[in-house]
Amino acid sequence: MEKNEETLRTLRHSASHIMAQAVQTLFPNAKLAIGPATDDGFYYDFDLDDHTFTEEDLQKIEDKMKEILKQNLTFEKVFVEDVDAKVAEFKAQGEIYKAELLEEHKNDNPTLYLTKDKDGNVLFNDLCAGPHVPNTSYIKGNAIKLLKLAGAYWRGNEKNKMLQRIYATAFWTKEELADYLNMLEEAAKRDHRKLATQLDLFSIRDEIGGGLVLWHPNLYTVREEIENYWRTEHRKRGYVIVQTPQLAKSKLWEISGHIDHYKENMFFIQKDNEEDEQYIVKPMNCPFHILIYQSQRHSYRSLPLRMAELGTVYRKEKSGALSGLTRVQGFTQDDAHIFCTPEQLVDEINNIIDFVADTMEIFKMSFEVELSTRPESYVGTIENWNLAEAGLKEAMDKRGMKYDINEGDGAFYGPKIDFKVKDAIGRTWQCATIQLDFNLPERFDIKYQDKDGQLKTPVMLHRVIFGSMERFHGILIEHFAGAFPMWLAPTQVAIVPVSNEKHADYAEKLYKQMREEMIRVKLDDRSESLNYRIRNNLKDNKVPYVLVVGDKEIENNTVSVRQRGVGEIGTMPFDEFMNLAKEQIKTKKC
Amino acid sequence: MEKNEETLRTLRHSASHIMAQAVQTLFPNAKLAIGPATDDGFYYDFDLDDHTFTEEDLQKIEDKMKEILKQNLTFEKVFVEDVDAKVAEFKAQGEIYKAELLEEHKNDNPTLYLTKDKDGNVLFNDLCAGPHVPNTSYIKGNAIKLLKLAGAYWRGNEKNKMLQRIYATAFWTKEELADYLNMLEEAAKRDHRKLATQLDLFSIRDEIGGGLVLWHPNLYTVREEIENYWRTEHRKRGYVIVQTPQLAKSKLWEISGHIDHYKENMFFIQKDNEEDEQYIVKPMNCPFHILIYQSQRHSYRSLPLRMAELGTVYRKEKSGALSGLTRVQGFTQDDAHIFCTPEQLVDEINNIIDFVADTMEIFKMSFEVELSTRPESYVGTIENWNLAEAGLKEAMDKRGMKYDINEGDGAFYGPKIDFKVKDAIGRTWQCATIQLDFNLPERFDIKYQDKDGQLKTPVMLHRVIFGSMERFHGILIEHFAGAFPMWLAPTQVAIVPVSNEKHADYAEKLYKQMREEMIRVKLDDRSESLNYRIRNNLKDNKVPYVLVVGDKEIENNTVSVRQRGVGEIGTMPFDEFMNLAKEQIKTKKC
Repeated sequence: MEKNEETLRTLRHSASHIMAQAVQTLFPNAKLAIGPATDDGFYYDFDLDDHTFTEEDLQKIEDKMKEILKQNLTFEKVFVEDVDAKVAEFKAQGEIYKAELLEEHKNDNPTLYLTKDKDGNVLFNDLCAGPHVPNTSYIKGNAIKLLKLAGAYWRGNEKNKMLQRIYATAFWTKEELADYLNMLEEAAKRDHRKLATQLDLFSIRDEIGGGLVLWHPNLYTVREEIENYWRTEHRKRGYVIVQTPQLAKSKLWEISGHIDHYKENMFFIQKDNEEDEQYIVKPMNCPFHILIYQSQRHSYRSLPLRMAELGTVYRKEKSGALSGLTRVQGFTQDDAHIFCTPEQLVDEINNIIDFVADTMEIFKMSFEVELSTRPESYVGTIENWNLAEAGLKEAMDKRGMKYDINEGDGAFYGPKIDFKVKDAIGRTWQCATIQLDFNLPERFDIKYQDKDGQLKTPVMLHRVIFGSMERFHGILIEHFAGAFPMWLAPTQVAIVPVSNEKHADYAEKLYKQMREEMIRVKLDDRSESLNYRIRNNLKDNKVPYVLVVGDKEIENNTVSVRQRGVGEIGTMPFDEFMNLAKEQIKTKKC
Repeated sequence: MEKNEETLRTLRHSASHIMAQAVQTLFPNAKLAIGPATDDGFYYDFDLDDHTFTEEDLQKIEDKMKEILKQNLTFEKVFVEDVDAKVAEFKAQGEIYKAELLEEHKNDNPTLYLTKDKDGNVLFNDLCAGPHVPNTSYIKGNAIKLLKLAGAYWRGNEKNKMLQRIYATAFWTKEELADYLNMLEEAAKRDHRKLATQLDLFSIRDEIGGGLVLWHPNLYTVREEIENYWRTEHRKRGYVIVQTPQLAKSKLWEISGHIDHYKENMFFIQKDNEEDEQYIVKPMNCPFHILIYQSQRHSYRSLPLRMAELGTVYRKEKSGALSGLTRVQGFTQDDAHIFCTPEQLVDEINNIIDFVADTMEIFKMSFEVELSTRPESYVGTIENWNLAEAGLKEAMDKRGMKYDINEGDGAFYGPKIDFKVKDAIGRTWQCATIQLDFNLPERFDIKYQDKDGQLKTPVMLHRVIFGSMERFHGILIEHFAGAFPMWLAPTQVAIVPVSNEKHADYAEKLYKQMREEMIRVKLDDRSESLNYRIRNNLKDNKVPYVLVVGDKEIENNTVSVRQRGVGEIGTMPFDEFMNLAKEQIKTKKC
């Protein structure tokens, strides 16, 4: 068996069996629930009535796993021949969760995986579809790590019993594990929820509700700059911009089909009377843009129509799924819909890829690309799907772009391209998407008049660059570890007079000059020591530049400049600093 | 009796009696409901089972009124001495509405107004509190005008019978009437709902619902410019900007008190289960801003805190009350809340007045100001009210500003200043407001630490400049009659090549150069005549400039310039036109 990225999930799944075996050895009363691999590792859920796992237990369990791994065990798959007998056996053992799962899958040719020693003794068995690594030599004791504990409802349903979940991870080598643990440590330092307090960026309040964000002045400043960039770039690239309301009648969502497929995520408005119209808070912008498309006649000459909106939508989520800015219930999509002729498709895809690449370049983020193709059940004609998939591939191939293909993983209404951006510590985040849609144009019956005079259905593309402003800002905070580049920094420059009496006038003069040039400047004349004020601005508040001004600076009309992450970069004429600052802001240098 | 603005309502009320008399003369079966004066004229509601008024009837009734007015009648007030007898008399006459009203007001010393001829004969009588003009010589036959018909439910309740309403107006002189009718005609031409279609500005769709606006690209462009101006000005004036969500738990609105006083205008979210938290779509931004205020400690040194947001809110309205952009259910307030010490109040008021004045100057709108003072029931201390009212007056007096005082007309939570802007055809619109609030700071228990170390409650000001973006854009469209000034125009320049073959390259070159400078330019190479294209851009689409380019222009690198509303202004080098255009955009010249 090859050791690579793809088989890593298999390794982790096998490690979860070892973890469960270790737990059962140490805690014989532990009932097993489920233990899958995840993108980052694996977990196992246990039901222990008589004990609550502690941090110390984690170390004990990890040690026990290492002991087990030394025994050179093998994993063996066997079919359950007599399901009823096995269910009874599970029940007799108290393994009620396994019994429940097995009964459910009785017609799916259920299999067990046995962990055996070299003498053929079965040390552990688990209801499991596999696959697994052949034996424990693949799992290195120094490449596994138990990470944390959490509560988890059986089957994720809060009406069920709360089980105890152990999160862990495993890699092929100890070096890979070490890199991952370093990354986790770095990520914890950069956690945008932690930096939110330190830098006064945003808050989520119990009086308002989970996943509903208050953007404080500091983070809104970042957002304003990014939105200004976003709008200007869209204008340059030939988009029009619109604005649509948050409420709409259910009629709209019946036409779009969302009311059938998306109901549980939609916030419905209470009706005062039974005969009142049903209103719904919008979970997406697409149907509104289609109505605007419909408000005019279109010909092949007026296409492509590229319609963009910073559209705020609301989607109901389980409170357990919410986290900071990255998992929210209310968010603003940097949405656009492109209506074009089939002949224009490749160019339009290309334009969007350019747009994504140019934007991510500004934030110094690279990205990977995935193409998801036609699933088994789909709407639209096979010809259109083939045309569209060929178009997406052609656009990427022509520019020599590498991409993975997820065969059959497209939405039922069209193929898509996902962009996964890589942040400063190597984590990937789903942001930009290009999604073709063969469904909505049909449902809304939108048309354009082609060269031949015929009315035809346009191709419709959904597209985001950032994804959601909330999520992207969460990613940005962590990417920059709160140290926003000059053009985004909530405070760009802090002026620190050496003496708040003697040097106040000069400091005030510089402050006013910078404000007039719309530089976000702070005059720090607190009665704290000079060193404290310098450090507090550069380190704690992550201000890009601190200008210290004293006697010498006043005499020469200069400023003594400290740069965040660099230190003292020397004394320079104030005008020179202004030019440097303005140039950095203008060029969006990171 | 003096003939002035204030007594105009009296004149109109008397005219409504004459109208009712005329109707009863022509249609003896007409039952009378009510006939008040309004801001613009008067109306009377009639119940006629056997006839539906037509446009021709309006002329007949107006003619009959003129006839009546020639008879030199007097208006005389008499108390109803025996109410029961009069009720019975009304009923006997079929005047069921009058009977109902009289019974309701039996304890209010009800009065009748009699219209008498010179011989003392009563030609008409109406249950009415008055006052009226002494006699018909005040009402000039050539200064009255019947305007339109409408249906109106008795007492505005849709469960009651639908009556026939006649709208009319009256002035002291025929000249004043003529001015008003001209204004109406001009207003009809400028109706923003009509221009919305002509200029493709916005739409309101049945699939979405009443008062929920789709901003099309053209009007969103105007809004984007105005919002950019708004944000830049706020930054210059020391505001911070925030963004807050549209949904919040009912808990927030219980603390704020809105759930008690504003419930019928709030959109409630349906709960999935009884035990779920109640969410509500926000009708205002204030409580959110207070939560952000609360997220930090404040001292007198950190105040004033000026917190602004373009905050989109939703308020439930009766569908009959909705109209275009001016009466909507979803709108974006250009909201701000200022938290300050009592000592800072006058300065802050002054700053806001400056801000309003500077802004309205840009749109070439003048304004009038009204101060509303303490009502009978109020929250807060009398000292704070006196201080606040004195502060508001002081700020206005100091700058020599004229204002009307509406004694006792303030909100229960604080006094306010309303700004009524005057548009290009003399109509006034309520836009900016400054509202003091003694209520919310107490309810949320917000504090700052004063010089003396004590925790004190800050003064809170609510403030809007435009009011709502929707409404202000409705006003702007009518103010400019759709001809937006250069900096706001959705299309700023149209390039029209004389020949679409010979002159296309030059036209294209200019087009690209202008786009690079972010000028909103259109290249009009439709296969229409030159004259049609010039007229269509200048007149129909109200584009500020049309550049015609032909052989001569290519030879000299010039453009032949037509200006909207002016005509041909000559041929000039292209660079010169570019400078002119950029200068006009930069200076926001109207």
